[in-house]
Amino acid sequence: MASSSSSTRKPYKGKLGQDFTTNVINSMGPGTSPRMREVMSVFIQHIHDFARETNLTVDEWMSAVQMINWAGQMSNDKRNEGQLMCDIIGLESLVDDITYQSAVESGNAATASAILGPFWRETPVRANGTSISSNTPADASPVFMHGKVTDATTGKPIANATVDLWQASTNGLYEQQDDNQAEHNLRGKFVTDSNGEYSLYCLRPTPYPIPNDGPSGKLLSLLDRHEWRPAHIHLIVLAEGYKGLTTQIFDQDSKYLNDDSVFAVKDDLTVAFTERKGDDQAKLEVEYNVKLAPVV
Amino acid sequence: MASSSSSTRKPYKGKLGQDFTTNVINSMGPGTSPRMREVMSVFIQHIHDFARETNLTVDEWMSAVQMINWAGQMSNDKRNEGQLMCDIIGLESLVDDITYQSAVESGNAATASAILGPFWRETPVRANGTSISSNTPADASPVFMHGKVTDATTGKPIANATVDLWQASTNGLYEQQDDNQAEHNLRGKFVTDSNGEYSLYCLRPTPYPIPNDGPSGKLLSLLDRHEWRPAHIHLIVLAEGYKGLTTQIFDQDSKYLNDDSVFAVKDDLTVAFTERKGDDQAKLEVEYNVKLAPVV
Repeated sequence: MASSSSSTRKPYKGKLGQDFTTNVINSMGPGTSPRMREVMSVFIQHIHDFARETNLTVDEWMSAVQMINWAGQMSNDKRNEGQLMCDIIGLESLVDDITYQSAVESGNAATASAILGPFWRETPVRANGTSISSNTPADASPVFMHGKVTDATTGKPIANATVDLWQASTNGLYEQQDDNQAEHNLRGKFVTDSNGEYSLYCLRPTPYPIPNDGPSGKLLSLLDRHEWRPAHIHLIVLAEGYKGLTTQIFDQDSKYLNDDSVFAVKDDLTVAFTERKGDDQAKLEVEYNVKLAPVV
Repeated sequence: MASSSSSTRKPYKGKLGQDFTTNVINSMGPGTSPRMREVMSVFIQHIHDFARETNLTVDEWMSAVQMINWAGQMSNDKRNEGQLMCDIIGLESLVDDITYQSAVESGNAATASAILGPFWRETPVRANGTSISSNTPADASPVFMHGKVTDATTGKPIANATVDLWQASTNGLYEQQDDNQAEHNLRGKFVTDSNGEYSLYCLRPTPYPIPNDGPSGKLLSLLDRHEWRPAHIHLIVLAEGYKGLTTQIFDQDSKYLNDDSVFAVKDDLTVAFTERKGDDQAKLEVEYNVKLAPVV
């Protein structure tokens, strides 16, 4: 986008005002679904208002189109740059909380959710008590992670829930971004036992920068913002008869908790990594329990 | 997007209200340009308000991300699907008019502009009086097109202005979309003579549908809208010392003048195709004169 200081420019007072916007909205036919009509009406109104309020020029708009096309061109089954573009303006966090809030209002206070992020992929089930780290780096701190999945309403344990986790390695890369990591390194699915419990070994997560080789990195640079995310582990927890949960847990001692580049931190998602004794595999442990809301 | 009727859903009243949005906006660093800060502040505010007002869900947002990525993946040097997505919600027309209005307010009333559209490409100069149609279809009506380029302030003719034109064939396809058309068929650049005049043979334009094989077509279908554009010829007119003009002229007798799928029609851009006598090459003619605003 242009870098000239133009905040003194007069706002647009041309012919394409509210009547034009109303005309575009009203062009939707009778076969549009009510929800599509609602969403797109509000979207078109806001996008047009944005253009008019900022006096957006053709060149500025075309720069944005090129960034959006670039995002699509960089996206594949291993990365989602369109999603990342939304993440850095806080949009994924916002729609995540909107969706979570709807679940809460429908009567079930479940564990707080957080964004999926662009690095999830399908991964095989592993046995409880095993490690997701296949080639642990020298600078990593192994952690024993464990917890219980319970019914948010009754408090009873949920057996056969799947806990799907993924985390970046200490070099800041997820396995699909890094040729030096084994397939499915630092990710795995665990199934809760009859007590609703799961357990595994992982690494203490470390802060990392989101990829800066695409339009998201370019936009962060234009916004004079850093690329760092606080240390976290991603989780998706699913169980039959319950609403699925997508979340992240954050190391309460991490840097960037207050300025996450994708605005995903919530207070109730921070956890403590504590000392663990008598275990050759890990000197740290973390407990993370999950409450799932029943489908009503 | 989901098709459930949910306009009765309560608006979002969760934790990520205005404070969250202000925090995202304020994350911009001191190195951001004033214009980037202005544009992105207003953009982030509108996008967040849109999500909150519609109670946008993660699934709906993810559908939109996938459409945006799809748009980028379909875009190349021959088509721009990201641009087309903007066109069908009226955004290109709007930013075009905003930019034109800025030119008018800076003191020069020039010929009304219109959107570039996604099918322009660089093309060679042709001699005045020649045809841009290299293999005229049987159902086409050849037209003699001519006009004068003048200074919007003084009214004097402008010599050596370039008039760059392009139009779809009667099958609704531009040459780069159609393997059966010769390279640069139905497009060409003409240079005005010492009287500011240009002339050429082209085809009477015909309505055509915008491409429906990508996300724009999908969105139009979801919005229950048709894909048709009224009959038009695209032009870019450039001259040294003058502001360039991008426009379209519309056949005043065409269908779809009132419901152009990309909202590009303006009253002062319609032209009459009239009878032409004594010319073996064309039974119709059209005159189109252009006023260019001097660079001040």
